Amino acid sequence: MGNSYGKRLRITTFGESHGKAIGVIVDGCPAGLALDENFIQSELDRRKPGQSKITTQRKEKDEMQILSGVFEGRTTGTPIQILIWNQDAKSKDYSHIAEKFRPSHADYTYHQKFGIRDYRGGGRSSARETAARVAAGAIAKQLLASENIEIYAYVSQVGDIRLEKSYNELDLSKIEDNIVRCPDAEMAERMIDLIDGVRKDRDTIGGIVTGVIKGVPPGLGEPVFDRLHAELAKAMMSINAVKGFEYGSGFEGVKMRGSEHNDLMVTENDQFRTKTNFSGGIQGGISNGEDIYFNVAFKPVATIMKDQESVDEKGESTIVSGKGRHDPCVVPRAVPIVEAMAALVIADFYLLNKTSKL
Amino acid sequence: MGNSYGKRLRITTFGESHGKAIGVIVDGCPAGLALDENFIQSELDRRKPGQSKITTQRKEKDEMQILSGVFEGRTTGTPIQILIWNQDAKSKDYSHIAEKFRPSHADYTYHQKFGIRDYRGGGRSSARETAARVAAGAIAKQLLASENIEIYAYVSQVGDIRLEKSYNELDLSKIEDNIVRCPDAEMAERMIDLIDGVRKDRDTIGGIVTGVIKGVPPGLGEPVFDRLHAELAKAMMSINAVKGFEYGSGFEGVKMRGSEHNDLMVTENDQFRTKTNFSGGIQGGISNGEDIYFNVAFKPVATIMKDQESVDEKGESTIVSGKGRHDPCVVPRAVPIVEAMAALVIADFYLLNKTSKL
Amino acid sequence: MGNSYGKRLRITTFGESHGKAIGVIVDGCPAGLALDENFIQSELDRRKPGQSKITTQRKEKDEMQILSGVFEGRTTGTPIQILIWNQDAKSKDYSHIAEKFRPSHADYTYHQKFGIRDYRGGGRSSARETAARVAAGAIAKQLLASENIEIYAYVSQVGDIRLEKSYNELDLSKIEDNIVRCPDAEMAERMIDLIDGVRKDRDTIGGIVTGVIKGVPPGLGEPVFDRLHAELAKAMMSINAVKGFEYGSGFEGVKMRGSEHNDLMVTENDQFRTKTNFSGGIQGGISNGEDIYFNVAFKPVATIMKDQESVDEKGESTIVSGKGRHDPCVVPRAVPIVEAMAALVIADFYLLNKTSKL
Amino acid sequence: MGNSYGKRLRITTFGESHGKAIGVIVDGCPAGLALDENFIQSELDRRKPGQSKITTQRKEKDEMQILSGVFEGRTTGTPIQILIWNQDAKSKDYSHIAEKFRPSHADYTYHQKFGIRDYRGGGRSSARETAARVAAGAIAKQLLASENIEIYAYVSQVGDIRLEKSYNELDLSKIEDNIVRCPDAEMAERMIDLIDGVRKDRDTIGGIVTGVIKGVPPGLGEPVFDRLHAELAKAMMSINAVKGFEYGSGFEGVKMRGSEHNDLMVTENDQFRTKTNFSGGIQGGISNGEDIYFNVAFKPVATIMKDQESVDEKGESTIVSGKGRHDPCVVPRAVPIVEAMAALVIADFYLLNKTSKL
Repeated sequence: MGNSYGKRLRITTFGESHGKAIGVIVDGCPAGLALDENFIQSELDRRKPGQSKITTQRKEKDEMQILSGVFEGRTTGTPIQILIWNQDAKSKDYSHIAEKFRPSHADYTYHQKFGIRDYRGGGRSSARETAARVAAGAIAKQLLASENIEIYAYVSQVGDIRLEKSYNELDLSKIEDNIVRCPDAEMAERMIDLIDGVRKDRDTIGGIVTGVIKGVPPGLGEPVFDRLHAELAKAMMSINAVKGFEYGSGFEGVKMRGSEHNDLMVTENDQFRTKTNFSGGIQGGISNGEDIYFNVAFKPVATIMKDQESVDEKGESTIVSGKGRHDPCVVPRAVPIVEAMAALVIADFYLLNKTSKL
Repeated sequence: MGNSYGKRLRITTFGESHGKAIGVIVDGCPAGLALDENFIQSELDRRKPGQSKITTQRKEKDEMQILSGVFEGRTTGTPIQILIWNQDAKSKDYSHIAEKFRPSHADYTYHQKFGIRDYRGGGRSSARETAARVAAGAIAKQLLASENIEIYAYVSQVGDIRLEKSYNELDLSKIEDNIVRCPDAEMAERMIDLIDGVRKDRDTIGGIVTGVIKGVPPGLGEPVFDRLHAELAKAMMSINAVKGFEYGSGFEGVKMRGSEHNDLMVTENDQFRTKTNFSGGIQGGISNGEDIYFNVAFKPVATIMKDQESVDEKGESTIVSGKGRHDPCVVPRAVPIVEAMAALVIADFYLLNKTSKL
Repeated sequence: MGNSYGKRLRITTFGESHGKAIGVIVDGCPAGLALDENFIQSELDRRKPGQSKITTQRKEKDEMQILSGVFEGRTTGTPIQILIWNQDAKSKDYSHIAEKFRPSHADYTYHQKFGIRDYRGGGRSSARETAARVAAGAIAKQLLASENIEIYAYVSQVGDIRLEKSYNELDLSKIEDNIVRCPDAEMAERMIDLIDGVRKDRDTIGGIVTGVIKGVPPGLGEPVFDRLHAELAKAMMSINAVKGFEYGSGFEGVKMRGSEHNDLMVTENDQFRTKTNFSGGIQGGISNGEDIYFNVAFKPVATIMKDQESVDEKGESTIVSGKGRHDPCVVPRAVPIVEAMAALVIADFYLLNKTSKL
Repeated sequence: MGNSYGKRLRITTFGESHGKAIGVIVDGCPAGLALDENFIQSELDRRKPGQSKITTQRKEKDEMQILSGVFEGRTTGTPIQILIWNQDAKSKDYSHIAEKFRPSHADYTYHQKFGIRDYRGGGRSSARETAARVAAGAIAKQLLASENIEIYAYVSQVGDIRLEKSYNELDLSKIEDNIVRCPDAEMAERMIDLIDGVRKDRDTIGGIVTGVIKGVPPGLGEPVFDRLHAELAKAMMSINAVKGFEYGSGFEGVKMRGSEHNDLMVTENDQFRTKTNFSGGIQGGISNGEDIYFNVAFKPVATIMKDQESVDEKGESTIVSGKGRHDPCVVPRAVPIVEAMAALVIADFYLLNKTSKL
């Protein structure tokens, strides 16, 4: 279970890393949306492996095809199935770990839960599954674009190199200008150098992706459990390798006093606004019309190119050697995934909110 | 919508701060559980207002009664309804904010979403709703206790006073030894002093609650979306005033390298174990049998005893004055709420996991 | 589990026949609906026992109170909890069947499923639970009334006395004119006589309730699984003692040929209409704007005032004697229950359909 | 929405009649089930068109492939995606009805609901979608087979030719012995003749499929809303062209008295049994261990080979002519669909029931 996300706009993903294909069904997309298939493919291209020297050198084209739910270029209100065939699988790379548990991977836990696992490339636990999310998110983005809601994400930290500038001090149009997807060119260079060094060490490093959502109307979110930020948290924490989530003032906010932290309200051009935005655009679990911003912490990926002590299925000591082609740092490729999940969360609440009042 | 939580063990809460009553329906609790009603009440007592000088002086007895689902002391598998009547409402305290939006409260967002709101004491957006969760959580705790799963939470930070010791360097049996619920007596004193000072300043301050879950068997969690930590995140972020969540190595983990961060596996007394636990007891979204630990960041509560600039429903400038009786810092009373939500998450996954394999 | 119904407008009921109370939480009702509490009570009065000589002589006032979700007479978009205290329980009436399984009751199946049951008056399996549905349905009816959607139900068969007239040959304003709730006065007399005779025989008899929904706009229903008539079927079949459901041409329709059965389309006053309505207002699982009509078959209730062979929990032969006060025929009191469930189904689809297209 | 079915074992179907492909994701199937792919294909072959002179002459091979969720012949607990490519589409057949509404089809209602529809071959509203259900049902059947639960369905009525024998007077092993799937050879001949005559008249006729489930353990079903028969009703009513559902004594039962209808309990070989089975194996919404049996009424399919009056999208009168290749009677091909949906319902409840009691 657990392979669906969303209430009114609901996605269900399927597929293992080295199975025949991966994909997604999107149910609940309103009819009549003109869908740009090229945009969906371009989003997948942002996530696909082999983009630059700081990502895995594995090559997958990740070409998607839409099998249903679209007629003459528009959504029909019926389920949209998107399929991505797997290629370049090289399953032989994985026979050496068929009966071993790789440290900090999902090998042991899947084995315990299901008693069987497709060990090839991580099987279902592989981040390859997120390609299906990116495809679905590209539909949600198009739905939101028609409402002038914009979704951004960028790398704000790699290891201990941290971009201190806030999102509103940055030019978000420059995110795609460099391979690490940090809109500050100078910091981007330093991040790239760090990742490149880590790669040469045959090691990996963590990082933070910051998300920003602009143009969200007030009213989105469904308290008390389905608070807007609670769903954002779940959606982000469901991405592979994520260890933390914060929005608005976040963990730093705990040090503040209420008198500093409260966002005073004013009227500006006949619109309710807040002077500051420590609330991160969400109050009481419902959007207030200000920008929503949040951070997502990614651990260093577990697959390293070094030998590590571990155990096998029988509980005997063994060595897991680093093989294959992997990302030294996931955050550059995580940017479109964070955006996709954010788009799915907002689109879902957008639709749900249509019936909040008479 | 959004007032239910859980898939197999599902709670639905109702009630406004100054309405007639609040409560919860728990659906899906297995039949045959011997239920200790006194324990449920004692958990509510841990959350109730007026406990000490550092909590609100408001008095509510929060006496619960079970209306259904229990017969001769045991659960029957039918829905358990728990009711808590409201008392000591003093609704007149709130007439002054009937048409004003309090800064960083949910007043404006509920107004936008629903076009109407019960403004008395925050109505549905009040943290009073969490009493219902604590009652439901006390049932989940009893279910988990029969499986030797233990849930702990404690205050690990208030403002900038931070307990640097890790949970496994502390004596968790001492959490209830002081009014701030920090198991380190010396740090507790400093936290209490800080809160007391803030209170005298008519201000508020934030803090962090750390949660620990011991005895969880391997296999809990339902990837890819309903990862164990993703549901924990959602559950915690759905608590009033929460701004951030992290588990295992969390935000600090982003600075580490994979070779440091990976938890090497060993066999100990015929059991699979990890040498370190940066994974926080969860790998690939599924529990691995190690301790689960996490941090929950609470902002300084918005209600302060000072005048603040704001606007009213017509968009005109106004002053919101601080009245009523409120908590200077929510974390001491948040401890049982964090525990309750953790218990509900684990119990839900525990039941779901019963059918993961043949 | 299984105590909730609905997707966008979702009810959860609780309570046992002889527990402290029964009730319902309604989540998802749009804010701003002016709620007439007297109407809710009057619907409960239509269902309550002791109304006439052909219903049980048990007395219950079934007075409801609203505990949340309504402020100054209007819904607030937050969960509405309705509570009905139990009275006149006479639990002693039931001690004689504490360890016996009454034939064709839920005694044995609850015992098998849960290993424990509140045997008093049927516990959770009692039709008393439907009072909670009637209260929730009265909210749905008020929501639909604002859209000019009308819900009717009436008794069309008792035993083998069958009203041959179709719903559109009857004056539906006369349903409440007699105690059996059949709008044809002459047939009503015959039905009443039959029920009265059965009652004197200390026996019970089955019957059929016909439902009619007028004013439903085209577009309601969510294929492929949540077809409008599939949800109606589930909702009706979830009422105690129901054995069958059919809509439109129903079981009789199987004998027809397509050329007879097809509803030819015409335009009338610029509106699409069908010349006939064998489709029962639903095509492909979606309403087409014509009247929706359906039949619900109720078995003779299992509780009879005669001795019956059975077994006890140990599997030993025993006699179950008829005691207590029960309905000789449930259909008169089932009329408001059928209406309530119909209203809940239609209201749910009405809200869901708001986002079917851009 | 509405394209998913099931709680613990959940299927989501996609695809239009003349789109690229149809298929299904099955989420929640326990890991470790040895899956016979040939059986899945053989079930699809039972449903596919072109089987005999009384079914449509359209040819579709309906070859399925499994894209995920199965590893080395066993289920892995991850989502199982089954894909069936569309062939032999002949979309040109449908251009003549692109802007016309066929009587008693879903053309008008989809147009109203979504504002756009894939008119080719009925698009999403086509019964072709049920192939996906049959594939999913074949997985559920294999799961149930390991618990010795058996599912049967057969044709018990075509037009007014009705098999009066009850299911337990028939040899259910003979269902597949003839093309109409009626286990009584003589009645089967008469049914086939009737259908053949109707076909020559370029018309269609309705019928009834009877379902039988044997070996269900006591305890399945989740009252009060998710009663076993309520879910069966929904599942059956969600199949194209279904107008009615009854189980056990059904509509005939309304004429009976409680003293006749009650199923007296006895002990047989240390097992609780009932002397009669008017309850149809379900009491209070929960299985009691006896055979479950039910009837499903199918209307005559709307597509006939005759000219019919109708209207077009502009509301103007038009003639819809009968073209294409269609079934004169759906019930023979509906048999495996009824079985599939029954298997999915029972498997879902089987898994849910694993946690009903401690």
